[in-house]
Amino acid sequence: MRYKIVLQYDGGGYHGWQAQPHQPLTVQNAVENAVEKVLEKRVTVTASGRTDEGVHALGQVAHFDSEKELPSERMLWAINHWLPEDIRVVFCERVSDNFDARKSAKRKTYEYRMYESETPNPLRRTREAFVGEVDVEKMDEASKLFVGVKDLAGFRSSGSSAKTTVREIYSASVTREGGSVIFRVTGSGFLYNTVRIMAGALIRVGQGRMDKGVIEQALACGDRRLVPDIAPSCGLYLKNVEYSAE
Amino acid sequence: MRYKIVLQYDGGGYHGWQAQPHQPLTVQNAVENAVEKVLEKRVTVTASGRTDEGVHALGQVAHFDSEKELPSERMLWAINHWLPEDIRVVFCERVSDNFDARKSAKRKTYEYRMYESETPNPLRRTREAFVGEVDVEKMDEASKLFVGVKDLAGFRSSGSSAKTTVREIYSASVTREGGSVIFRVTGSGFLYNTVRIMAGALIRVGQGRMDKGVIEQALACGDRRLVPDIAPSCGLYLKNVEYSAE
Repeated sequence: MRYKIVLQYDGGGYHGWQAQPHQPLTVQNAVENAVEKVLEKRVTVTASGRTDEGVHALGQVAHFDSEKELPSERMLWAINHWLPEDIRVVFCERVSDNFDARKSAKRKTYEYRMYESETPNPLRRTREAFVGEVDVEKMDEASKLFVGVKDLAGFRSSGSSAKTTVREIYSASVTREGGSVIFRVTGSGFLYNTVRIMAGALIRVGQGRMDKGVIEQALACGDRRLVPDIAPSCGLYLKNVEYSAE
Repeated sequence: MRYKIVLQYDGGGYHGWQAQPHQPLTVQNAVENAVEKVLEKRVTVTASGRTDEGVHALGQVAHFDSEKELPSERMLWAINHWLPEDIRVVFCERVSDNFDARKSAKRKTYEYRMYESETPNPLRRTREAFVGEVDVEKMDEASKLFVGVKDLAGFRSSGSSAKTTVREIYSASVTREGGSVIFRVTGSGFLYNTVRIMAGALIRVGQGRMDKGVIEQALACGDRRLVPDIAPSCGLYLKNVEYSAE
């Protein structure tokens, strides 16, 4: 039987989601180790997608198959018992075998968090990106350029294996919330580093170092050199993943 | 000549402020190492008081003496250059030799930060204490019991070397701010673990597990057994230290 789990994690201590040979400290490894303790069998835990080194999750979704039948509440509790404190299962349910955390994902929402300050703040360092002072209105305006069916070829790092670079972005905004500046973006999917490159471009716009027209141009011609910045991983959160009703 | 510096730090990676033999990872050691690089001489950096292992600072004050004369801005920049990223000097100025960060301190303000949640949150784990659900109004009411000239004998850990246990508490409050619950307390000084014991008692009150009358009693009779909880260090921040105008 198949279980769906929703995970929160502090990515600061991990080399990203994806299990890697010779790299034991990945979130997937940690979760698979905990699940193995519960099921007394090694199984693959498949997430909606990889998160990079240092990236956090507020609502990563994953699934795995179990021969053991446990009530969902009990499964959640048991996995958490074996997980390190910087990873938590916050939801668990039995799902049909048709559910696939990666293939069935319809929409993903990311948050990119920044803080304004004259100097870097040691207490926000691993949770938000330091941006000096920014014009949030300008950033919000520029973020709307991402909305629609867009070719994101100019907003991905090389090493991306995706077949097509077209994605639908449903919404994007930049707001000031309780001392933080948050870029929020929801799309059908994202390419390698896309949200961090978007954030990097928006930060430039907010700092008055770039006109939003450059983002338009980068979207039109797919030239990554126009938007060279990759905002630091510590500010990125996978907020949630949505699936169509079964 | 004497310099006064204001420090912010993430206490999570350190064994408290105080330099200790066989314990190189203290904040004082890290700051003295950086200052030594700048002055090319080892000097003592004296703080307003110790912070315990895991406790953070938003505005710790310290002083040191230098034979080298540097403009304050330049001194700040130079020390930060040598400091690890989780400690920052945010202010620096020349002061008279009468100024002593510890002895001249008149008032200190601490913040104790908590978050309400059904389950522990891996992303708030090292910055705030997990408290389930609490009645903030009840906690705020109870916090007022600390205000005034009080004997804090019941609110300190053993190992405290202070001569008198009487301190004046100028203000105390518990408020809900942007998803967090914050206990704020300003006093002429605090004994060993006092703020964390106060927070521990307030959390009990907020969770409905203790009547605020018990706090009154502990203040009156000085019996620590009435308020046994010490709230975790990760929630505690030394917010600022005030000095009388010179």
